[in-house]
Amino acid sequence: MLVSTRNPLNIGAAARAMSNFGFRKLRVVNPYQPAFREAKSAVGAADVLADAEQFKSVAEAVADCKLVVGTTAVGKRSLHHPLRRPEDGARLIRRGLASGNVALLFGSEKRGLTNDELSHCHWLLRVPTVEKNISMNLGQAVAVCLYELIRDAKSPRVPEKLPRASAAEVERITALLLDALHLSGFTSLRRVADSDERIRRVVRRLNLPASDAVIWQGMFRQIAWKLRNPQPPKA
Amino acid sequence: MLVSTRNPLNIGAAARAMSNFGFRKLRVVNPYQPAFREAKSAVGAADVLADAEQFKSVAEAVADCKLVVGTTAVGKRSLHHPLRRPEDGARLIRRGLASGNVALLFGSEKRGLTNDELSHCHWLLRVPTVEKNISMNLGQAVAVCLYELIRDAKSPRVPEKLPRASAAEVERITALLLDALHLSGFTSLRRVADSDERIRRVVRRLNLPASDAVIWQGMFRQIAWKLRNPQPPKA
Repeated sequence: MLVSTRNPLNIGAAARAMSNFGFRKLRVVNPYQPAFREAKSAVGAADVLADAEQFKSVAEAVADCKLVVGTTAVGKRSLHHPLRRPEDGARLIRRGLASGNVALLFGSEKRGLTNDELSHCHWLLRVPTVEKNISMNLGQAVAVCLYELIRDAKSPRVPEKLPRASAAEVERITALLLDALHLSGFTSLRRVADSDERIRRVVRRLNLPASDAVIWQGMFRQIAWKLRNPQPPKA
Repeated sequence: MLVSTRNPLNIGAAARAMSNFGFRKLRVVNPYQPAFREAKSAVGAADVLADAEQFKSVAEAVADCKLVVGTTAVGKRSLHHPLRRPEDGARLIRRGLASGNVALLFGSEKRGLTNDELSHCHWLLRVPTVEKNISMNLGQAVAVCLYELIRDAKSPRVPEKLPRASAAEVERITALLLDALHLSGFTSLRRVADSDERIRRVVRRLNLPASDAVIWQGMFRQIAWKLRNPQPPKA
């Protein structure tokens, strides 16, 4: 999944790497140039580009995914997310693929994924570059990550214990919780700029089981409703 | 080592991947455009490009190397050379580097290494692409091969799992959530005998990280407080 990519040639290069390694589902969020489908760099990958799906937000693009993995060049930026090396991450991604869709997000060439975009991720993957030059070309980063995914493809897949909630379900739960928190005054009490993003990350770290998604929505919906409709105080 | 590369942007991209993964000695044999040193694609790798050595033949370029490894997209072409997967090849290359220079050759974008160029190689390395599209972009192929070379270099690994909240913390969170649910009417609406136990199990299935225990308590405490102390309705 390519987010806010500026250069359409990089989208084509990513499609080419996908095609080389047998991946098909390319999703593009807010590309800088809408005409990316004509990118000449997608040698042998015209089908991947033609079938690419386009979205307006990361939230929509990951909605049907059970696991959302961000990529980052920086080793220390995010203390909010576990940071994994490609080989460890690839193992978890392959395991995740056994029970649903997995999104692998690549941010824009200039600044990578924003904090808001990162807040949709369960954890981050970082290619171990040297300190002196950590910034990889987008197409090359995609190639390395996908290569790592197919590298040990023969290894057996162990299904996770409980299937996890989809990103859409987690986002619905997050929205209801945020509503309750706003109504209760929690968020205004704390006065931190990125409060909603923090809450979003906190909820993602729960690793919610799919079978509990409905009850969590029910709980937070009822709490928010009650906060909005308190009983009149007794006379 | 890049042989007969046509597009200078690919030379720059190769230099960038070298820089990302800590390699320095780029050698270029018969580049199609002599002005490759200005390639804009060498982000952060100007030094690698500036120091690149230029040769007129593969023979001269590999003269001081103890091990010469070719790369190929084709799985079957060369019966003359052993064909290795990157992980096996990387092990041999790292071993070779202990006793001298090792050359890793990449051929031209159109036709790869010629039979003459291949004849200088001890064996061949092939990135395992899918049959349908075996042709990788040159810069991406370089990135994948170099990544494989540094992949197993020992480096500290971040522990995979976040420490989990203690049972006592989980129970405090559960109690606050139950309080909020009772106040909101959730539990009386559902009318199941073991409602509290169910909620307790639901919270346990979350696998809460220890570092988030405080914020969850804070959120539920504030919500419960607000449910207990609603603003008086406006007159």
